[in-house]
Amino acid sequence: MLCVPVGAIGAVAAELAPDLPEGVIVTDVGSSKASVAQALAEALPGVAVVPAHPVAGTERSGPEAGFATLFRNRWCILTPAEDADPVAVERVAEFWRRLGADIEQMAPEHHDRVLAVTSHLPHLIAYTIVGTASDLEEVTQSEVIKYSAGGFRDFTRIAASDPTMWRDVFLNNREAVLDMLQRFSEDLSALQRAIRWGQGDELFDRFTRTRAIRRSIVEQGQDDARADFGRSHE
Amino acid sequence: MLCVPVGAIGAVAAELAPDLPEGVIVTDVGSSKASVAQALAEALPGVAVVPAHPVAGTERSGPEAGFATLFRNRWCILTPAEDADPVAVERVAEFWRRLGADIEQMAPEHHDRVLAVTSHLPHLIAYTIVGTASDLEEVTQSEVIKYSAGGFRDFTRIAASDPTMWRDVFLNNREAVLDMLQRFSEDLSALQRAIRWGQGDELFDRFTRTRAIRRSIVEQGQDDARADFGRSHE
Repeated sequence: MLCVPVGAIGAVAAELAPDLPEGVIVTDVGSSKASVAQALAEALPGVAVVPAHPVAGTERSGPEAGFATLFRNRWCILTPAEDADPVAVERVAEFWRRLGADIEQMAPEHHDRVLAVTSHLPHLIAYTIVGTASDLEEVTQSEVIKYSAGGFRDFTRIAASDPTMWRDVFLNNREAVLDMLQRFSEDLSALQRAIRWGQGDELFDRFTRTRAIRRSIVEQGQDDARADFGRSHE
Repeated sequence: MLCVPVGAIGAVAAELAPDLPEGVIVTDVGSSKASVAQALAEALPGVAVVPAHPVAGTERSGPEAGFATLFRNRWCILTPAEDADPVAVERVAEFWRRLGADIEQMAPEHHDRVLAVTSHLPHLIAYTIVGTASDLEEVTQSEVIKYSAGGFRDFTRIAASDPTMWRDVFLNNREAVLDMLQRFSEDLSALQRAIRWGQGDELFDRFTRTRAIRRSIVEQGQDDARADFGRSHE
């Protein structure tokens, strides 16, 4: 199971290749999948490869950042090739099920589109706003920290994620991320325009339609309350 | 103590004005302060006015959304006029101190700049990305919800905030919000460009400098762990 930044997976797999035993199954936990699936297939011809992405985690990295309930009630996405050995796929699936995860299977390209919006774009935006806040002239760093409870602190948690891991995610899921970013920027411009021209109804309408998604996330147990209880934060 | 959306504060104050007893102190809890301070001064000539903003809260609104520790270890900002009665200011400060808050005092215009970045911009961005996600054609709403643990869910909490309250904040703190938004958009464009051109070092550098702010927020007890323990979530 390769647990390294996605940009390093091909090189690490190539290094392992000569020493892999007969009948081994190779999997990973990378946050982007199309480039990873290709790198693994190229580095490990003839080996059973089942790329995986457990959609869970905190801003912390490394073995010490794990805890027993990290994957409970979270989804793990498998992106095996169409001709992958079903027995190998099932063994990887069972591994994640025993950690409490639910399993979904999809094409790596679709995975990368879905995660571009549910994970990669949020991280990019969080990194950006925290950077913007630290560059202000007339608002001090100390003020940003003191009054972060107004919403900003939620972004700082995500923006504290590992820089190497995230650099690699953006370089390896470029097209999907750029597309989502373009859509986001257009939507943000529309809100900006509504604020500039004092269009209260437009703002109200847009702020209203986003509540349904939150409700569904809470209903489906994907919010941060119960499952994450007992951790330092999130 | 006026607890209504900031766009309604002037009208509510004007309605109360004839019935206010001698020696009363009027305060509020609005999230923008320059327009509020002006509206209160105009509606209540000769009355002791001490505008306030307790920087705390969840995505829920109304009296039922309160809980005993909501203001503990949070900052409450007072923005009295320069000629305000110091005794009135101290009484409002003491009210908030007894709820566990720390007090800071600043000019309403400076408050609005600080909160534009620590609260208003984060809310605007969160509303936007949740809207962008619900408009996608090839990624379903159900997928967005299932895989929200990758970062997206943190934004949905903020984007579930009260639409009326936030419409009024943006309409009443327009200049500061538009300025912060402009800076944010420029910074986002720089990251977008770095992704498009595969500039890994640039991404790494930008992702690294944001970690210090997170560390300070945790050190100063402004993260969401301890103080908020026991709430439904945040």
